Amino acid sequence: MYQLDLMQLTPQQFLDEYWQKKPVVIRQGFKDFVDPIDANELAGLAMEEEVQSRLVYKENDQWQAKFGPFENYDHLGNENWSLVIQALDNFSEEAALLIEPFRFLPHWRLDDLMASFATPGGSVGPHIDNYDVFICQGSGKRRWRVGDKGQHTEFAAHEALLHVEPFDAIIDAELNAGDIIYIPPGFPHEGITLETSLSFSVGFRANSSISLLSGFADHLIDNELGGQLLEDPNRQVTTNSGQVSNEDYQSIKSQLLSLVDDAVFKTFTGNFLTAPKHELDIMLPDEPFTTEEVSQLLTTHGIKRLGGLRAFYFEDTIEQGLCYVNGEEMVFDAEVSPAVKLLCDNVTLYPESLSKWSNHAAFVELVASLLDQGYWYLVEEE
Amino acid sequence: MYQLDLMQLTPQQFLDEYWQKKPVVIRQGFKDFVDPIDANELAGLAMEEEVQSRLVYKENDQWQAKFGPFENYDHLGNENWSLVIQALDNFSEEAALLIEPFRFLPHWRLDDLMASFATPGGSVGPHIDNYDVFICQGSGKRRWRVGDKGQHTEFAAHEALLHVEPFDAIIDAELNAGDIIYIPPGFPHEGITLETSLSFSVGFRANSSISLLSGFADHLIDNELGGQLLEDPNRQVTTNSGQVSNEDYQSIKSQLLSLVDDAVFKTFTGNFLTAPKHELDIMLPDEPFTTEEVSQLLTTHGIKRLGGLRAFYFEDTIEQGLCYVNGEEMVFDAEVSPAVKLLCDNVTLYPESLSKWSNHAAFVELVASLLDQGYWYLVEEE
Ligand SMILES: O=C(O)CCC(=O)C(=O)O
Ligand SMILES: O=C(O)CCC(=O)C(=O)O
Ligand SMILES: [Co+2]
Ligand SMILES: [Co+2]
Repeated sequence: MYQLDLMQLTPQQFLDEYWQKKPVVIRQGFKDFVDPIDANELAGLAMEEEVQSRLVYKENDQWQAKFGPFENYDHLGNENWSLVIQALDNFSEEAALLIEPFRFLPHWRLDDLMASFATPGGSVGPHIDNYDVFICQGSGKRRWRVGDKGQHTEFAAHEALLHVEPFDAIIDAELNAGDIIYIPPGFPHEGITLETSLSFSVGFRANSSISLLSGFADHLIDNELGGQLLEDPNRQVTTNSGQVSNEDYQSIKSQLLSLVDDAVFKTFTGNFLTAPKHELDIMLPDEPFTTEEVSQLLTTHGIKRLGGLRAFYFEDTIEQGLCYVNGEEMVFDAEVSPAVKLLCDNVTLYPESLSKWSNHAAFVELVASLLDQGYWYLVEEE
Repeated sequence: MYQLDLMQLTPQQFLDEYWQKKPVVIRQGFKDFVDPIDANELAGLAMEEEVQSRLVYKENDQWQAKFGPFENYDHLGNENWSLVIQALDNFSEEAALLIEPFRFLPHWRLDDLMASFATPGGSVGPHIDNYDVFICQGSGKRRWRVGDKGQHTEFAAHEALLHVEPFDAIIDAELNAGDIIYIPPGFPHEGITLETSLSFSVGFRANSSISLLSGFADHLIDNELGGQLLEDPNRQVTTNSGQVSNEDYQSIKSQLLSLVDDAVFKTFTGNFLTAPKHELDIMLPDEPFTTEEVSQLLTTHGIKRLGGLRAFYFEDTIEQGLCYVNGEEMVFDAEVSPAVKLLCDNVTLYPESLSKWSNHAAFVELVASLLDQGYWYLVEEE
């Protein structure tokens, strides 16, 4: 397990002082840091179809970006390029452990873990993100420059690279293994590699209002909701044919607002927040699990949530037997709420917490179905 | 001009008693009714590409529907078919006059004028509409059956014909020229032609909540609005990683609701309500009008709004120099508000109301631009 030291602040102190407010270098946030994955493994992952990866380099002083999968890296030499891999938590159990120290933030705020391998001089260029990010330096050495939030001009340095004009640094620091830099959304930043480097970005993305609204519209359409027509049985005679009266405007607005009904909007929100952000590496079991097997396994084996899978609940829905898994509502017997809560709150669960549920038919069936879908899997015995 | 007699009720009494509440036969709503267009002209229109038309008939007892344009009607014989033409107000000035008696309803509620030519036995079949409709009987004779609102099973009698199962009639009446039947949304109805018939449906459609929401989402996207991300600088440490707290749920909901800001939502509503419902028959002038010409013409000629064109204002925007024309916001000098109001409230305007604006540069330019776009045109001299 990675042990996070936030400059000796409590997590709450860190949130109060820095979260969404200002960037900071957290020296030796991880003491004695060991890379959870090595450069060769990363290069291998970026050869796979389902892994989202990108190479960034300069050619004749022009920024270039290429999307994976890649066949080889031979032509790239030892300098001035970097390889970025998205959603590493979906593909590497070891790397996913880097997310755990950040559980003082709710999982729904998390986007993914991104890995970056860079040779000296390599960089993705100066840019601004919509993310809160904790960039954890692994082996190697990188210099980070961060500018202040404000009016910065963005431009496409390449069709796939949105860069920002040169900025003055409010942070200019060399990071070594175990150092972390936290950067809130809107602060321009740039990492320049000094020594062949691995770094790991734990990214938190909040949704934009419009993505929420579009998602909600899609949800209503998919569920054939929202078909009710505006009604105006109390209409008054109009003398101005071209006028939309205040009263009519208000009833149109009310019609829209009435869609945001908690019963519907909460289901949408649950589905929306748990929708997969990146492709999952689902491995289906060869055969469906029987409830007898599962009942037995819960007393002998740990079970683990698939890397990147999102499973959340609301304070009230968990009591009502509703949670949200991978973009869908999951209904369960409210009696097993405490056990489902454990599944949502913890990546890995061992018999010490679940064996007492091993004879509860509703829970056993639920776990069988999650195992059958490949959303959870059995922890390998050591 | 067509003179409407609502069974000697005032329009307000009619609204109170029937509008959106129950169907009614309005005997001799139009006294001495003369068809505004004849069957041959309709048949001709249905041969044009830009006119939306439909033939409905039975073949071996199977309902059939074909969409226009049609090349000829020779094979159809003298019985058991009908031809329906949508948005006739966009293509026939004379027919469009049939809308005028219904101006006690605001224009934004209007959808279109539909014409129906039917031979004996012809019908589009029993169905339910989302429309309030005034079906005005022209020449010929038709029997109308209307059932009560309630649980009716709908089914596709043909892929383009949504029909309803047989229903008990609460109205069963023969309509002759000048009779009108008013049917609110949700009441099943069926017209069976007794003598070769022309009828004209003045249809009022309210939008569904979901079409409003989808339209609003599109509006925000088109205008690059709604990009703001959820912010949570006051975040508290989470102990349950899988929980979406009540507080977080509320801030997500607030984020959505904050999009429905009046400044933005009113512009959207104006654009949305004036968006063309059916193809307009725009004829561009050969050459742009000069302001000198327009200034002169306003004192000598009437100007007329293109059939089907929608031009609305809100009570407050008209004073601020904003109205909405054909799906777009139109900005004008607030000094000319009274004249723009006239344009939105009236289909045709003569020098008696507009000549006093003929020297107002802002108004003259505005009219020139409307004429240039083919949204308004000069009334032919008699
Ligand atoms: O690792 C890199 O090169 C870029 C990292 C970064 O900018 C980020 O995680 O926001
Ligand atoms: O004219 C017809 O055949 C159908 C008319 C109708 O059902 C309507 O206008 O709602
Ligand atoms: Co970044
Ligand atoms: Co109908």
